[in-house]
Amino acid sequence: MSRSRMKLGAFLMAGGHHIAAWRHPDAYAQAGSDIDHFIALAQIAERGKFDMIFIEDAAAIRERDPELASQAARSTAFEPLSLLAAIAVNTSHVGLVATASTSYTEPYGLARSFAALDQLSGGRAGWNLVTSASELEAENFAASGLRSHSQRYERAEEFADAALALWDGVEDGAYLLSNGEAFADRSRLHPVHRHGKHFSVDGILESPRSPQGRPIMVQAGASDVGKDLAARTADVVFTASQTKAEAQAYYADVRARLGKYGRGHGDLKVMPGISPIIGATEEEAKAKYRALQDLIPDAVGVALLASYLSIEDLSAYPLDGPLPEMPPTNLIQSRQQLIIDLGKREGLSIRELARHFAGARGHWQVVGTPIQIADAMEERFADGAADGFNVMAPLFPSGLEDFVTLVVPELQRRGIFREEYEGTTLRTNLGVAQPGKS
Amino acid sequence: MSRSRMKLGAFLMAGGHHIAAWRHPDAYAQAGSDIDHFIALAQIAERGKFDMIFIEDAAAIRERDPELASQAARSTAFEPLSLLAAIAVNTSHVGLVATASTSYTEPYGLARSFAALDQLSGGRAGWNLVTSASELEAENFAASGLRSHSQRYERAEEFADAALALWDGVEDGAYLLSNGEAFADRSRLHPVHRHGKHFSVDGILESPRSPQGRPIMVQAGASDVGKDLAARTADVVFTASQTKAEAQAYYADVRARLGKYGRGHGDLKVMPGISPIIGATEEEAKAKYRALQDLIPDAVGVALLASYLSIEDLSAYPLDGPLPEMPPTNLIQSRQQLIIDLGKREGLSIRELARHFAGARGHWQVVGTPIQIADAMEERFADGAADGFNVMAPLFPSGLEDFVTLVVPELQRRGIFREEYEGTTLRTNLGVAQPGKS
Ligand SMILES: Cc1cc2nc3c(=O)[nH]c(=O)nc-3n(C[C@H](O)[C@H](O)[C@H](O)COP(=O)(O)O)c2cc1C
Ligand SMILES: Cc1cc2nc3c(=O)[nH]c(=O)nc-3n(C[C@H](O)[C@H](O)[C@H](O)COP(=O)(O)O)c2cc1C
Repeated sequence: MSRSRMKLGAFLMAGGHHIAAWRHPDAYAQAGSDIDHFIALAQIAERGKFDMIFIEDAAAIRERDPELASQAARSTAFEPLSLLAAIAVNTSHVGLVATASTSYTEPYGLARSFAALDQLSGGRAGWNLVTSASELEAENFAASGLRSHSQRYERAEEFADAALALWDGVEDGAYLLSNGEAFADRSRLHPVHRHGKHFSVDGILESPRSPQGRPIMVQAGASDVGKDLAARTADVVFTASQTKAEAQAYYADVRARLGKYGRGHGDLKVMPGISPIIGATEEEAKAKYRALQDLIPDAVGVALLASYLSIEDLSAYPLDGPLPEMPPTNLIQSRQQLIIDLGKREGLSIRELARHFAGARGHWQVVGTPIQIADAMEERFADGAADGFNVMAPLFPSGLEDFVTLVVPELQRRGIFREEYEGTTLRTNLGVAQPGKS
Repeated sequence: MSRSRMKLGAFLMAGGHHIAAWRHPDAYAQAGSDIDHFIALAQIAERGKFDMIFIEDAAAIRERDPELASQAARSTAFEPLSLLAAIAVNTSHVGLVATASTSYTEPYGLARSFAALDQLSGGRAGWNLVTSASELEAENFAASGLRSHSQRYERAEEFADAALALWDGVEDGAYLLSNGEAFADRSRLHPVHRHGKHFSVDGILESPRSPQGRPIMVQAGASDVGKDLAARTADVVFTASQTKAEAQAYYADVRARLGKYGRGHGDLKVMPGISPIIGATEEEAKAKYRALQDLIPDAVGVALLASYLSIEDLSAYPLDGPLPEMPPTNLIQSRQQLIIDLGKREGLSIRELARHFAGARGHWQVVGTPIQIADAMEERFADGAADGFNVMAPLFPSGLEDFVTLVVPELQRRGIFREEYEGTTLRTNLGVAQPGKS
């Protein structure tokens, strides 16, 4: 039963997830700064019984180069927690996952903001914990520059533990919320006392315990230390895998790590990204795909590829030649490997790799009819490559609308996706255990 | 004209602003964690044509002593920016002012969150800048403890300048938001490069310029350095004054500081707090007041008085004797002075002072009919003590509802308060100039 139904997340991103979405003739140009647009998208996802919507984040502009910055797709003008608070009061069941970094905030502040979102959504909040690999973010906050990968994760570990302790420091019923003689039952409050290398927290949250216990923890680490942090603390992991074999390898790897933290396989849902390009016929889908791919300027594709590879620049190398040999860096290690492997395996040129990765930003792309897309999803779900998917519609709202109208009913017909929400909290719908409940 | 109409803010605080509100038989016990309650209050304020609602804040529990913590009134379980984002999408005209501290966050992060609120509310955001005088907050963030008053303000000055520079770094039209060839017009983006003692910021915001230019700056500094920061950067100042003479002195003082920063009197609105206890007759109002005051436990009143005075404990002194002599501290200096002065002037005992200040938390209390309350407000408004008021209804929703139904129409009849909103941005309604517009 727990294995029989997949989980679905909807990746929301202004005009669409495709890198050139904003340049498409159907694109809604004001998408990124129109709150009603985002509310409408969340309501579509909720109509489709999605477990959650997901907002990515970076506390910076996305590109240093003015040329690229003005040609690449953008996300949103809204900081994710504010955006999701506005969406929370216009939805009732869909989970609300905000990305937030452990590198430029403090555990008490962040735990408190997520507790607020969790409270005002009736238990639907989730935190996608990231360590922020971008130098542009570092420059907005620290004179000392971007921390190394291992320093970032060391900080993330301590941050996550402090946040979890803060949420768990307030038991059910600790704040009485009744017209009694006292406001708090001190025996149910467990002040946190943590004095670590990066943070010092002595206190308790003033929010009642969430209806789902505490926010859902999401993570997308691809490095060893990232996967370990996920295995130890996350309820959901996002991942970008191209082939089924890659997805299976990631799936097996992350699950194999659960045991050493005393957790079982059901405790962690692995949700790779899928970029579905849906057509009534295969030909229509392919034409849609081509129309989007043709909008990617080579400069944007190659620059994105360079950034995925964590190297300064690829422009010294011929566009139609192979990738140069590269040393490992301290940045996003595994995405780098994935690209290098694909290039070697399929003999792709820089231009081809650039197009291939840029469109769906490194995620699995499936181009076809609703049946073909459901087939592809079912196959990976059945074959131990995924517990569900993070659906990255290339264009909004049409791509999400099509998925909900055409693909979701097909998944339901096959009995591998819910017909109705199991409950009103994200935790209940995901089917992961509630901490502090027996 | 600019002088002829007062500005009104509504202080929203869970069950009510009165310290014992939550213990009142009419209190709504779940108020602090019910988002619908807050949305309803904001809608009442908007019906009353209030310029803004205001959410206070502290990133900590409010009392260290378990006895007091469980007997004093509480605010809300919601972090203010999340709360106001949820309210923004359920209102259309009322301004949304969130308190946020310069002591435990970074300018880029905060500027970005306020830009999001400003964007999603269509230009209605305001930031009440505080430096956080509470040790309980310091303990949640820093091993080194509470910074001194002067260190806090030094940090606040640098923080405010960086936030203002970030907002002003994006001109109107910098982000094109149209299906063109480019997403940004670089000539309208002015990256911030600030390397100060406390912060380092090299970057720009990814939000389009707000319809009101940038968020409204609110401040409540009472010390010299606090009033100077307000005179230099704020559009609105909140203040707590008991007597008309005190209010006039504060008003004159703050306005006198504007000139040295090249600003005029119209650039800053001074809004003292008022706690109105409204009855159909004076007797009814007095009975309402007594019913609330009688709910204040002596221990809570005296502890609050001690905290206002920034001293550890008053329990060593006889409740019916006068305040002891006290040295100045580095904490909230002027509130301390105000209490000491009142005690001496009126010969009040510790118990009497405690009750007097605890009820409305040090603010001006007016107990009477709607006419009497309008008279009192008009007098201070006309006599150079206020440009408007921050209305602190003792109980919610009834206290705010009564104010809107009974007092607002009386103010309108006298021509000293608007009948309709002047516009849809907070800046337009306040009538303060828009930066970056000529
Ligand atoms: C679906 C998905 C979404 C992600 N979203 C973000 C994001 O919003 N912000 C961010 O800084 N990183 C994001 N990442 C990057 C990851 O957090 C992580 O840094 C990356 O996968 C590399 O992992 P590693 O640091 O363990 O090598 C995302 C990754 C994936 C797969
Ligand atoms: C109406 C009003 C509201 C205030 N709200 C807050 C608040 O929410 N959080 C906070 O830390 N301080 C708050 N304060 C305190 C002021 O920010 C400020 O610290 C205090 O007035 C002392 O000023 P000073 O530090 O310049 O002496 C408030 C003050 C007033 C008058």
